[in-house]
Amino acid sequence: MARPALAVGTSWYPEQWPEANWNTDLAMMKAAGFNTVRIGEFAWSRMEPAEGQFDFAWLDRAVAAAARHGMQVVLGTPTAAPPAWLTQNYPDTLRVDEDGKRATHGARRHFSFASARYRDLARRVAAEMAKRYAHDARVIGWQIDNEVGPPSFDTEAVARWHAFLKARYGDIATLNTRWATEYWSQRYDDFDQVPLHATGQQNPALLLDFKHFTTATWTDYVMNQTRAIRAQADPRQFVTTNTMFWNAGFDHFVLHRDLDLASWDNYIPNGRPDWVANGANHDLVRGYKQRNFWLMETQPGRVDWVPVNRALDPGQVRELAWQAIGHGADAVLYWQWRPARNGQESYHGSLLGQDGKPNPILAEVASTAREIGAASAALADTAPVAKVAMLFSYDSRWAIDLQPLNKNFDPIREFTDFYRPVRIAAQGVAVLPVDADLARYPLVIAPSLNVLTKSQADHLADYVRGGGHLVLGPRSGMKDDANALWPDRQPGPLAPMLGARVDQFYALDVPVGLTGSPGGTASVWAETLVPDTPDVTVLSRYADPGGWLDKKPAIVTRSLGKGSITYVGAWLDPDAMRTLADQVLARAKVEPLLRGVHPDVEVSARAGAGRCVFVLINHGGQAHAVSLPGTARVVAGTFSNSVLQPHEVGVVEVTGTACQ
Amino acid sequence: MARPALAVGTSWYPEQWPEANWNTDLAMMKAAGFNTVRIGEFAWSRMEPAEGQFDFAWLDRAVAAAARHGMQVVLGTPTAAPPAWLTQNYPDTLRVDEDGKRATHGARRHFSFASARYRDLARRVAAEMAKRYAHDARVIGWQIDNEVGPPSFDTEAVARWHAFLKARYGDIATLNTRWATEYWSQRYDDFDQVPLHATGQQNPALLLDFKHFTTATWTDYVMNQTRAIRAQADPRQFVTTNTMFWNAGFDHFVLHRDLDLASWDNYIPNGRPDWVANGANHDLVRGYKQRNFWLMETQPGRVDWVPVNRALDPGQVRELAWQAIGHGADAVLYWQWRPARNGQESYHGSLLGQDGKPNPILAEVASTAREIGAASAALADTAPVAKVAMLFSYDSRWAIDLQPLNKNFDPIREFTDFYRPVRIAAQGVAVLPVDADLARYPLVIAPSLNVLTKSQADHLADYVRGGGHLVLGPRSGMKDDANALWPDRQPGPLAPMLGARVDQFYALDVPVGLTGSPGGTASVWAETLVPDTPDVTVLSRYADPGGWLDKKPAIVTRSLGKGSITYVGAWLDPDAMRTLADQVLARAKVEPLLRGVHPDVEVSARAGAGRCVFVLINHGGQAHAVSLPGTARVVAGTFSNSVLQPHEVGVVEVTGTACQ
Amino acid sequence: MARPALAVGTSWYPEQWPEANWNTDLAMMKAAGFNTVRIGEFAWSRMEPAEGQFDFAWLDRAVAAAARHGMQVVLGTPTAAPPAWLTQNYPDTLRVDEDGKRATHGARRHFSFASARYRDLARRVAAEMAKRYAHDARVIGWQIDNEVGPPSFDTEAVARWHAFLKARYGDIATLNTRWATEYWSQRYDDFDQVPLHATGQQNPALLLDFKHFTTATWTDYVMNQTRAIRAQADPRQFVTTNTMFWNAGFDHFVLHRDLDLASWDNYIPNGRPDWVANGANHDLVRGYKQRNFWLMETQPGRVDWVPVNRALDPGQVRELAWQAIGHGADAVLYWQWRPARNGQESYHGSLLGQDGKPNPILAEVASTAREIGAASAALADTAPVAKVAMLFSYDSRWAIDLQPLNKNFDPIREFTDFYRPVRIAAQGVAVLPVDADLARYPLVIAPSLNVLTKSQADHLADYVRGGGHLVLGPRSGMKDDANALWPDRQPGPLAPMLGARVDQFYALDVPVGLTGSPGGTASVWAETLVPDTPDVTVLSRYADPGGWLDKKPAIVTRSLGKGSITYVGAWLDPDAMRTLADQVLARAKVEPLLRGVHPDVEVSARAGAGRCVFVLINHGGQAHAVSLPGTARVVAGTFSNSVLQPHEVGVVEVTGTACQ
Repeated sequence: MARPALAVGTSWYPEQWPEANWNTDLAMMKAAGFNTVRIGEFAWSRMEPAEGQFDFAWLDRAVAAAARHGMQVVLGTPTAAPPAWLTQNYPDTLRVDEDGKRATHGARRHFSFASARYRDLARRVAAEMAKRYAHDARVIGWQIDNEVGPPSFDTEAVARWHAFLKARYGDIATLNTRWATEYWSQRYDDFDQVPLHATGQQNPALLLDFKHFTTATWTDYVMNQTRAIRAQADPRQFVTTNTMFWNAGFDHFVLHRDLDLASWDNYIPNGRPDWVANGANHDLVRGYKQRNFWLMETQPGRVDWVPVNRALDPGQVRELAWQAIGHGADAVLYWQWRPARNGQESYHGSLLGQDGKPNPILAEVASTAREIGAASAALADTAPVAKVAMLFSYDSRWAIDLQPLNKNFDPIREFTDFYRPVRIAAQGVAVLPVDADLARYPLVIAPSLNVLTKSQADHLADYVRGGGHLVLGPRSGMKDDANALWPDRQPGPLAPMLGARVDQFYALDVPVGLTGSPGGTASVWAETLVPDTPDVTVLSRYADPGGWLDKKPAIVTRSLGKGSITYVGAWLDPDAMRTLADQVLARAKVEPLLRGVHPDVEVSARAGAGRCVFVLINHGGQAHAVSLPGTARVVAGTFSNSVLQPHEVGVVEVTGTACQ
Repeated sequence: MARPALAVGTSWYPEQWPEANWNTDLAMMKAAGFNTVRIGEFAWSRMEPAEGQFDFAWLDRAVAAAARHGMQVVLGTPTAAPPAWLTQNYPDTLRVDEDGKRATHGARRHFSFASARYRDLARRVAAEMAKRYAHDARVIGWQIDNEVGPPSFDTEAVARWHAFLKARYGDIATLNTRWATEYWSQRYDDFDQVPLHATGQQNPALLLDFKHFTTATWTDYVMNQTRAIRAQADPRQFVTTNTMFWNAGFDHFVLHRDLDLASWDNYIPNGRPDWVANGANHDLVRGYKQRNFWLMETQPGRVDWVPVNRALDPGQVRELAWQAIGHGADAVLYWQWRPARNGQESYHGSLLGQDGKPNPILAEVASTAREIGAASAALADTAPVAKVAMLFSYDSRWAIDLQPLNKNFDPIREFTDFYRPVRIAAQGVAVLPVDADLARYPLVIAPSLNVLTKSQADHLADYVRGGGHLVLGPRSGMKDDANALWPDRQPGPLAPMLGARVDQFYALDVPVGLTGSPGGTASVWAETLVPDTPDVTVLSRYADPGGWLDKKPAIVTRSLGKGSITYVGAWLDPDAMRTLADQVLARAKVEPLLRGVHPDVEVSARAGAGRCVFVLINHGGQAHAVSLPGTARVVAGTFSNSVLQPHEVGVVEVTGTACQ
Repeated sequence: MARPALAVGTSWYPEQWPEANWNTDLAMMKAAGFNTVRIGEFAWSRMEPAEGQFDFAWLDRAVAAAARHGMQVVLGTPTAAPPAWLTQNYPDTLRVDEDGKRATHGARRHFSFASARYRDLARRVAAEMAKRYAHDARVIGWQIDNEVGPPSFDTEAVARWHAFLKARYGDIATLNTRWATEYWSQRYDDFDQVPLHATGQQNPALLLDFKHFTTATWTDYVMNQTRAIRAQADPRQFVTTNTMFWNAGFDHFVLHRDLDLASWDNYIPNGRPDWVANGANHDLVRGYKQRNFWLMETQPGRVDWVPVNRALDPGQVRELAWQAIGHGADAVLYWQWRPARNGQESYHGSLLGQDGKPNPILAEVASTAREIGAASAALADTAPVAKVAMLFSYDSRWAIDLQPLNKNFDPIREFTDFYRPVRIAAQGVAVLPVDADLARYPLVIAPSLNVLTKSQADHLADYVRGGGHLVLGPRSGMKDDANALWPDRQPGPLAPMLGARVDQFYALDVPVGLTGSPGGTASVWAETLVPDTPDVTVLSRYADPGGWLDKKPAIVTRSLGKGSITYVGAWLDPDAMRTLADQVLARAKVEPLLRGVHPDVEVSARAGAGRCVFVLINHGGQAHAVSLPGTARVVAGTFSNSVLQPHEVGVVEVTGTACQ
């Protein structure tokens, strides 16, 4: 069968139901407009009921049944849920938490990410699956494990930690220097003396390297299975692993380096979506590989793991599906199809009830799936348009989380506060790692690039020298990648280019005023800047009579040829952030894709060979006009007479104009 | 001496004081109108100062001294407080918490409920006590242990857990099916693989069975001592164990099956009583054996174990004593008489100070005790009157607590919200297990019967077919007793009789409106009902413009012959709950015992052979008239001219009329 | 060089920086007006890089460099931070927390205070330091360890606990009696059975003795090193240890008994100082030895260990320095000079940045240092003036914290509420242990002397009989020093002298009224007093209609010769507290040092041979006049024309008048 440009479907757990049910369920999926199922993750005890004894006959039948109903298949390796025999035979494979408590059977992710034995067993089951399905035309790709994340503190993890540090620093003297271990007599004589810690009153150097360690270990864990599959798989089969929103467990850019595809699980836990914040996360996932991605799971209504598991309102599940596509998703899969009659997630949102009958949400999902099918051809081989890049740095996020100084400084919230007005104004933002190629973005914003290596600084300086406009947020350029203070004050290695330095930073318990443009208020954080070059322009100053901040520069900017560098030393209020966004967009000559659109209407565009497809979503409660350039053809949704009704979606192909 | 119909007294700890003090204390008790003391619980180290060496001489003298002052004696077995030699000699008897930490000496309840060794030692001390006092006329009964409850996670507990599961399911395949262990590869090959857990991310089937396990183990623990006593005791000596308010540690209906008497410890921790909620708990305790019960402990003023240990207001200790009697208590014992000079409870409310002089509360308690004495003859051999039954199911409570979906769904609060208007209107409610004989109750209400077995459903269906009126609250009929979803939607096995099903349930973060009768609002929880039978009547619908709930049925009812079944899909506001109560009481033709009584006045009635005694308590701040039928004789309290003053109590025997 | 009367300086960590930096840093210190550095604490791994191999050459050079720049040196023993080789070679020296978790390397204070091995190693390094610097004129004193505090629960600690209890009680029967172990069968047959606990549901007797145990163990820990130093040191070298504000870890009066000097670390974590509360802590530290003390650390702006680490406002660092001196500090040292480039405290406030350039705060600190230098001669050999004593009892604080009954009863807050109006009115308060010589104070206030031994009661009774005026706050005289209730009601052994007793105490959840003088309200706590002697005067009664408290005495007083004893049974509101303070000050004929001073102006006086120096600090936002007696000479600050500007300091020597 031809692979559809846009996948839509669900996770299916045939192992949970009698085979007699399968055809009914699959027929309902087909009727709902689905074309894709994900199968197999968590089914280890069915695939390998006893050690070394494999049974794939049921899976063969499930894949065949799915295909008969027009479903392409993504196979998940089942390693997030080891069977009881495994952890009984090999108790050392069980995860140990930071307090030394060993996990038990019955939940999931209870294995140690460091266990060599577990790697062997996981590789074997993945290889066995690959042997059987690597050349199966019905199988389009592979998902490794499921939502990897929690580290382990067992003895193998400790040994890997020491090996990791040795590989990173070479000799212990280097570690001692980078970590500044003369402080509190921390000096290590040997790597083996370094304790493994994720939390607690430890050197922030150690704690940041813990994150580097989990990144390396999880990457190695995923690649272990990836290699086993790639050794046999058709090249057309992709390999991915599904990740979680804003997950801080490891550096996602690193983990995705050698995977084919990014995919993630988008949940709105409290059922009250903030569409801009959610869009930022899509853009981050797209940035992992700077390529379109999959929405591997999303909720049909509600989740079951927060204090109040409110359902999304009617229409919002559809809005979220189209938002994902607008931001670069090529697939939308719902979780879950039908709840198991028992087990931890029987209350989770689902498309059917346990009785196999539709839940109310299924009608909306099916209608959305049919729309996606209708728009599939237009959206084939298109990618989102963005002329602004925002830099996201896991090291920076971690460094701030480890030493917040102000508990209200949440780097994700600060990133989102910067992102919000830029996304609304520019209608397309790429979220990238610091070392990405930035040349095609006239504007680059790094909200709080706390950790900034010398080579990253050089890369950004080159960008500015090449005519780019760089905006740095507060706390930028403070640390190196061992979490050490740069010998120079912020922005450290970029201070010479900025021509200004941060004289002092302050944690605020109440807001202070700002004069100039942007004016308004600063809260949570304020830095005083001192220009040391005449051509630095002060945009804003603090108004704090009697206080340290009074009249000190808060935002400075400097032009360098056609480019510029701007440093924002304060966490701005939303209006000030909007003023700032307008200024820097104007300076970088970034125009919106569509002018005059109300801020409640999300505008995304995907461009392909000669095509431009707008995805328009009205997240608000009022109708709004949207004026499109060129000749518009509605390929999905209900956009008519240039008006978008409340909670409506319009997917419109525009010809006669390129996406700007 | 003749055993008084109503016992009144206190716990007495002679072991804490020099014998020289005993007579003074006992004389003060007698002067206070007391006729009963509880002795012995916690005194193991005095009864058995070294292993196998028993010393009851002091206890003989204490029982004799008590009797000399007119006190009948309840003896407590001391097993809640093992001596230091015991846990030192047998450290394996010490309780282990879920994190693996072993308890130490110095507190109480630090033994493992699963330890065979502890059972042996506890049985021996109980048998030694029984040997001495089983035929002692002064000893009227026995209390086993004290407030049993906390489970243990030691290796013996794990072994008992496996044996329990094997006994419950027979073979592992049945457990796998009932628990749906294909989910997350949980499948067990052997009972020995099943971990012992009370909390954490485990299968809710396992976690509910943990509660069944603690029920079985505590019941067995209590019966171990009960058997040792019964083997010797006079039949006139009762055996009980004192339990705690709304304690969720085990199924109290099961634990009481083979005890003679229910008794409990009624505390108002914050000193601000909600009399209706407190009355509900009395009714539950009475329901354990559907027989009058004992108030084994209650507070003289304040407790010492909450953040702010406020004392009850003047008059409230008396109100609470009479409330207990109105709801079926045949005894009221105060805790504590006099504080030990040191130890964990030296700040707890007491009748004397540590100096042996009265505390201010003693005057109120003594006056109440004398009233109780005066009313004793009238109340002898009477039992509370109730024409409405409410069903309480530990399985349902646990199942909801394990998977609340909305953190604000507290099953006890929801039970109380249903109970409140019904108790005020009907002036008598029995709280019963689901399998109780319901025939004599025209109205039966099950607030949230989440777990409903097939046989329970049949029992309730029989009740309706027999002309009964059954009201089910939200979340009813969802699960079987392995915590698995019924294949049919709610109310599962009762859905055919209801002629309607729950289409979808929603956790609410803000209230939604209700139209119809009852109208008002729903909060926390809302279910949409779909009738599939023409004779189903929709009483209320949601008003939720633009939302999933809008215009969907919230409450439906169906008549079946003389009976009816009603399903309430939402958590109603207090006014709506009152409207509903009035409707269903009217439908079931349940009349109040006394008409026109203000809601602040609690009306209870106890009926005996040809007698009807009203216990009237004005919990409010205003005087209220109460009109009694027939000829009234005030046997206690200050009810005169048919008026009850604020915070006053009237105990009135009415002749010439039966309790309705 | 001549030792300056007032030391001013900073902690200096030469081991963290290349020697090439040293001269620059020291020259900047000198330019800032500093005369003192503290060196060495935390540098164990530099002093003893491998076991038994000592290297002090670098320290020699550092001391010499400091001296070259005019800095006198305080040497810290480095034992708060054991080297990695130490804890690797002797893992038993690592601290174990109450849950049994052993500490790891990389933080500080991770040693067991009970380890004999650690004592040996600590003594050796201290002795080696002493050998080298005991006769070094540049070294003026020694600091033992750093902020000692956290206990350990390892097996050596348990053994020491048993030995401690045996030493305290002699035989186990005495312990059983004092602890009242008949309660809950706690009776111990042997000291070895007593578990070591700091928290949990244990006998409050055990938990209070745990505090006595930590006091004894930490004192012994500090004296171990003190003895090693004193064996060699010149008598002119002082020995101290720096303590923390209101630290409840041990009894500071006991710990300081055999030290030369008290010193402490004064931090204002949230950057919002309450000057009166901070002053109370200074007075407590001065009370440790009833001698002037050192401010060993204080913050240049902000700390880094609270949720929001706000910086002090401009001027406040200066105010705090002078406040310390006004209350008896003879030294002010800032922490930290310059942040290490990595490590746990790189965000802490500092005088330089990591780049070695000044932070904004340095200008204020340098100006303050120069002022201190200017005032040094005038303040030499002076001590603060106080005519009121307040008693602080660690036993009482602990006893209340262990059994608060009302979570809002914070003994430190209650102490401060009593202190506030007294300090403002009397302009000088000594905070003393209960057994201090009180004869020279006309007024003594004990805010909540919960634990009161017989000998302490006798001491206080003697004070009253000698003409003193004693005021006891709520909860006083309730317990003995085993945390047992006195057989008599409060104030226990002082009840006969008071001629009244507490009939009952109540935890309040809302305030109640007070009539009489003081009138107002009581909150948190209320005791009803019953006079049993005719000459007792009731000052205030409760107004609580319908409640237990209504019309009962709340405050009573009794004159005895020229003296008096007053008992305050309630926690008074601020106005009532002020009325009470005025009354008792008037009765004791305590006059303010300076009349008519606005409450925002802190007045302290230090008196020496014929000299009286006032330290005046305007903590408010308005200018205020201050009228001085005699001839005034401004020795520091900006006091002119008898007016103190907002946030200004005036240090004024007055001749022609003694401090009153």
